[in-house]
Amino acid sequence: MIDTERLAWLRLARSETVGPVAFQHLLRRYGSASAALIALPALARRAGRPQPPAIYSSDEAEAEIAQGEADGARLLLACDAGFPASLKAIDPPPPVLWALGDASLLTRRTVAVVGARIASASGRRFARELALALGGEGLVIASGLARGIDAAAHEGSLASGAVAVLGGGLGDIYPPENEALYHAIADRGCIVSESQPRRRAQAKDFPRRNRLISGLSLAIVVVEAELKSGSLITARLAAEQGREVLAVPGSPLDPRARGCNDLIRQGAAVCEGADDVLRAIEPLAGFRAPPDPYFAGNHGDPAPELIERVYDLLSPTPVAIDELARQAAAPAGVVFAALVELSLAGRAELLGGGLAARA
Amino acid sequence: MIDTERLAWLRLARSETVGPVAFQHLLRRYGSASAALIALPALARRAGRPQPPAIYSSDEAEAEIAQGEADGARLLLACDAGFPASLKAIDPPPPVLWALGDASLLTRRTVAVVGARIASASGRRFARELALALGGEGLVIASGLARGIDAAAHEGSLASGAVAVLGGGLGDIYPPENEALYHAIADRGCIVSESQPRRRAQAKDFPRRNRLISGLSLAIVVVEAELKSGSLITARLAAEQGREVLAVPGSPLDPRARGCNDLIRQGAAVCEGADDVLRAIEPLAGFRAPPDPYFAGNHGDPAPELIERVYDLLSPTPVAIDELARQAAAPAGVVFAALVELSLAGRAELLGGGLAARA
Repeated sequence: MIDTERLAWLRLARSETVGPVAFQHLLRRYGSASAALIALPALARRAGRPQPPAIYSSDEAEAEIAQGEADGARLLLACDAGFPASLKAIDPPPPVLWALGDASLLTRRTVAVVGARIASASGRRFARELALALGGEGLVIASGLARGIDAAAHEGSLASGAVAVLGGGLGDIYPPENEALYHAIADRGCIVSESQPRRRAQAKDFPRRNRLISGLSLAIVVVEAELKSGSLITARLAAEQGREVLAVPGSPLDPRARGCNDLIRQGAAVCEGADDVLRAIEPLAGFRAPPDPYFAGNHGDPAPELIERVYDLLSPTPVAIDELARQAAAPAGVVFAALVELSLAGRAELLGGGLAARA
Repeated sequence: MIDTERLAWLRLARSETVGPVAFQHLLRRYGSASAALIALPALARRAGRPQPPAIYSSDEAEAEIAQGEADGARLLLACDAGFPASLKAIDPPPPVLWALGDASLLTRRTVAVVGARIASASGRRFARELALALGGEGLVIASGLARGIDAAAHEGSLASGAVAVLGGGLGDIYPPENEALYHAIADRGCIVSESQPRRRAQAKDFPRRNRLISGLSLAIVVVEAELKSGSLITARLAAEQGREVLAVPGSPLDPRARGCNDLIRQGAAVCEGADDVLRAIEPLAGFRAPPDPYFAGNHGDPAPELIERVYDLLSPTPVAIDELARQAAAPAGVVFAALVELSLAGRAELLGGGLAARA
């Protein structure tokens, strides 16, 4: 890919109202990121947006790349050969990734080990020893560089292959006590982020981060988790992505075991050690990107009348795009194109997994 | 039933080589325990036993009943109205039971709470509180009067309904530190045994005891258990009897959680408290004794030639009686009669669940 198209790829991915679902659709519909960038303002306007969405400028994109490369990192586009197949297989795949360190780790068999930030000493020990044992079996360990279980999982896998996924940009080290760990992983493992380098993490970045942790992994192991904790969200995302979910059981008298026990109650596998993980992932082959069900041939532009009909059918409750197509009495491909345009106008939300909602 | 038939029932149940499977068969085949007692020596001889099996004498049976009644206990025959329907439904049902205390508890909805003898303080506390909570929901709690989890389960259910099942006879109090608990259950709950009163427990009595604990119960909860412990055997028996099995999860770093975690791995439900138990038993109706598949009409006596043919087909590995019938090219009912006679001669073992083995 020539440099202007790489630049356009990054610009399209970072432009206002362009989420990863719309990104993938526009790329296929217009054949290149450059062409999609040109079409973007008209699409948003047609779908009812008064001002055009803010396009990430060439200057901004060039500055981002210069910054990341000056920091020693590497930009990976979803079309690059080195882009992890595991992430190409999630729906939707992230259009771009920044990687600091040994990006080849991202293409190896990976298991995520995650859990509570306020973890018990025995939970931390378990996570470290599990990461060590799985590393000894040639597996890369992914986690989120948080306090507690995440940090212990990284520590245990430093020598064998550690991948830390950040909510913010590369260089946004949080919590501060993990600074030495961050640099150790950057030296010997790999730090990954979807955001611009040095960008501070916001609350909305963590679900995206969790989606990448499970997306990189064949299986996810939750070590300690209270009910309603972030680790349970990661576990749910992993299950939706078709990845194995394991949880480490604990006493009902320990609140930090509640989330894990509840996962087991819902069907997660019991994890008492590396053997359980190896058994769970043993039958799994590699990843394969699913075909896009809404791009069987180019359906042409959706008529303005169809765009409004689709909008009227939307509600804040997510609905399957196939169901919308049935109700709109139109092919799913053209209904999907209408939804993308509505999303570019900020009027619809494309949720992945073939679901859409009113924004 | 007249007293001589009750006496014959007890005598048949206690006679040498008459196990509970043979007991049930003989009763149906001869119509009464008295008639079966008369037939017994000839059946054993025909199946190849040189000396007749020792018949429990009328004097012995009368002395057993006198002893038990003097101790304040009550003999329940499987044909009595007060005999628990839960135990009539297991295969094979125990022919007789001694009960000390409030035998009406045996007919109420029951949950077994069992576990390690060498239990942790938190495990004991969990068992006591679980028994208390389930008792508050009107459930009777059954356990085995052992140290640790059993004792805690009894303590928690003393006020609401406690049933202790002994391996030995009534009055055989073990361990000695549970003597006060024994008397408290005799006063306010119910103590149950299949053995003669005051008979000391032997190792072989405990599997029978475990079978009764689960047999009395809609569900069994294992609170703490190491791998290969007796509680896991009780859990397996419960599953074979079609009862719900629940286990309390624990940390992989705690050896006393291994057995429970392994049960969960094999499909037991996670138990973190009374709600989990109530949810598990909520859909369960009462018990119903299964029909005897080998007594559809009286097949007459098995020919000596068939008895030997069936014996030749047996090995120490248990085999399904239906499979034996197929290989012997004879009706299952008459093959079953041949197996009963072989068992009376001490040459075959009837294992319940339609299985038989060479003795």
